[in-house]
Amino acid sequence: MPAVISVKIIELTILEEFFRIKAKDKYSSARSAEISTLHGMIKTPVFMPVGTKATVKAIEHSILYGMGCAVILGNLYHLYLQPGIEILEEAGGLHKFMNWEKSILTDSGGFQVFSLNGLRKIYDNGVQFKSVIDGSTHFFTPEDVIEFQSRIGSDILMVLDECIPYTDDATYTKNAALRTLDWAKLSLKKRDKLNMERLPGNKIKVFGIVQGGFIKEIRKFCAESVSAMDFDGIAAGGLSVGENRATTMEMLGYTSEYIDSKKPFYFMGLGDPVGVIDAIYCGVDMFDCVMPTRISRMGSAFTFEGKINIKNNKYSRDFGPLDDACSCQTCTRYTKAYIKHLYKSREILAAMLLSVHNLHFMLELVKKCREAIEKGSFCSFRKEFKSVYQENHCKNL
Amino acid sequence: MPAVISVKIIELTILEEFFRIKAKDKYSSARSAEISTLHGMIKTPVFMPVGTKATVKAIEHSILYGMGCAVILGNLYHLYLQPGIEILEEAGGLHKFMNWEKSILTDSGGFQVFSLNGLRKIYDNGVQFKSVIDGSTHFFTPEDVIEFQSRIGSDILMVLDECIPYTDDATYTKNAALRTLDWAKLSLKKRDKLNMERLPGNKIKVFGIVQGGFIKEIRKFCAESVSAMDFDGIAAGGLSVGENRATTMEMLGYTSEYIDSKKPFYFMGLGDPVGVIDAIYCGVDMFDCVMPTRISRMGSAFTFEGKINIKNNKYSRDFGPLDDACSCQTCTRYTKAYIKHLYKSREILAAMLLSVHNLHFMLELVKKCREAIEKGSFCSFRKEFKSVYQENHCKNL
Repeated sequence: MPAVISVKIIELTILEEFFRIKAKDKYSSARSAEISTLHGMIKTPVFMPVGTKATVKAIEHSILYGMGCAVILGNLYHLYLQPGIEILEEAGGLHKFMNWEKSILTDSGGFQVFSLNGLRKIYDNGVQFKSVIDGSTHFFTPEDVIEFQSRIGSDILMVLDECIPYTDDATYTKNAALRTLDWAKLSLKKRDKLNMERLPGNKIKVFGIVQGGFIKEIRKFCAESVSAMDFDGIAAGGLSVGENRATTMEMLGYTSEYIDSKKPFYFMGLGDPVGVIDAIYCGVDMFDCVMPTRISRMGSAFTFEGKINIKNNKYSRDFGPLDDACSCQTCTRYTKAYIKHLYKSREILAAMLLSVHNLHFMLELVKKCREAIEKGSFCSFRKEFKSVYQENHCKNL
Repeated sequence: MPAVISVKIIELTILEEFFRIKAKDKYSSARSAEISTLHGMIKTPVFMPVGTKATVKAIEHSILYGMGCAVILGNLYHLYLQPGIEILEEAGGLHKFMNWEKSILTDSGGFQVFSLNGLRKIYDNGVQFKSVIDGSTHFFTPEDVIEFQSRIGSDILMVLDECIPYTDDATYTKNAALRTLDWAKLSLKKRDKLNMERLPGNKIKVFGIVQGGFIKEIRKFCAESVSAMDFDGIAAGGLSVGENRATTMEMLGYTSEYIDSKKPFYFMGLGDPVGVIDAIYCGVDMFDCVMPTRISRMGSAFTFEGKINIKNNKYSRDFGPLDDACSCQTCTRYTKAYIKHLYKSREILAAMLLSVHNLHFMLELVKKCREAIEKGSFCSFRKEFKSVYQENHCKNL
């Protein structure tokens, strides 16, 4: 039966190919790798622009393609409420609905649901929450969350997890962590069940999430437990939630020691340039954050010297680009004086041009890291970047 | 002295070339023509997207180039207040400031100033007004307005005029009209003085404005008076200011009889599809209106069957484009269901995609009119368009 044999070979090939490490840095945990999905190849380290509601805010897709964006993030919680799973399914999935040709990673909505203080209740078998749109009540089980993400055709699915705020309450942290680990097992079972019905090459890929708050023993336990499970990738969750940066990096460094390094490692919700470059140093492959697009709508721009804010009066007569070193559509076409004028005039084009620049900046930064890793010069690149980039470059704003 | 002779030849050539009529319709006053400026050739009938504050709202320039946009409108009143004439001059003019390569027509701001009820005073030698930004007091003479537009490098300049609301007060209408005519003469003097200092080929082009409210004798007097002056083009002002459409068209038809038909004829502030096609019938060459971009931000879209509003529930599951007959970037890439979702989610991309579509629609409409005029089929095209296009296609919204 040659047909059956050939199918098996394809399946093996696809499984082997999901994540391939290409190069490892000698002096740190940094590495470059490739992730293959049905929608193309993602080179890591990668920054994933956030398209919560099926749009990366203020950017048309073709501009994202043009800057080499291979994967964006969607959010199940938001998409479930609007337009709803049924409409996404009718459209032929999230990709077709929004006409996005590259990969999509969907977050389970755990973070969003747990942010709804007073509007949600946590149970051992899932979470009940109220819609912020119409106040209606909904319930997500860990299995629902995998099924919904599968139905809308996400390339990489995240498990439901319980995010907790920055706290030193060990009992609370432990209980939440254990619940997240229970949910992780249920999620994997659901993945396997769904994959039984799927063709080889079309299996869903699910990432587990390491929680554990800021208590090292619990983090370690979670990291080891999630690593021991058969996930397609591992994420660090519940970090960068209000704690100071030193604490974030300490917890990340500590956590990463217990992570299965053969799998992609994703730091959820981190997106400032220095944070990203430091996390790459610790072995992180994937990032997402609303920051580059959010600061754009507030008039800020990354530059290789640090963040600037276009509201500063000195830019009124500055006829140079946001960043001399930048080759984005905004910097090659428009000046600080023009963007400042647009921002001051409350014109939508200000947010559009700044979003293009800031996302291009982040994509270029991780690309430069990747290239440096492959050339064996990551640590010197990181040192140089951090010596030039000042967190508060433009202090008066 | 051969050098001097050659300069004179260039000057004659440029003057001849500013406005060239290419084709006239046999059964109406419709015509196609070309306007040449330093920034390229404008084929008429033309719709000029409004870029009041040096940006056509929610559209990046390259998309406008892509849809064949050859001229946009700026507004002196707004640009004078922010970023200010000095900054525009320092940048090398409005074109360089905003990096717009094609032509720019600037409105004098007469309409804006006269809309500032309680914030402006009209004198025989000009108008005093308060800034809506900081409350500071300013004074525009007709000469200032020409000088400012000249300094910022506008391709086509409009005179200062006194716009009046819809009224049957003959004395008020007459006094305002006479003042506008006085200002027209002062504006021409200023143009000639400025042009003395300018090189051949770089002379400023100034359009006069026909006012006269809704009293036929005064309109006629204004049309004849402005036509008798040495303007580079003539505009109909003070129409489409609140009166019903039949009155607008009656006044336009009447006015156009007394207009010098050798010059470009511009209907200020008209931009609905039926209005434009009817005005072309009356001999109008140029249009501008905020409508296509403004309705975009309110969720509406032109189609060849009429205007639709994306808020309508029936579009939630409509996976077709806004208009099947449209070849714009929005219609070739995105569905009604997606745009409805974006609009409902208050995403900026909704306004961006609708603005692309609605401006493309208007540019295509005038292009189709132009082609029909040149093929001798304008009247049948107009009849067909109006038989299909329904003003209230989507009545429930």
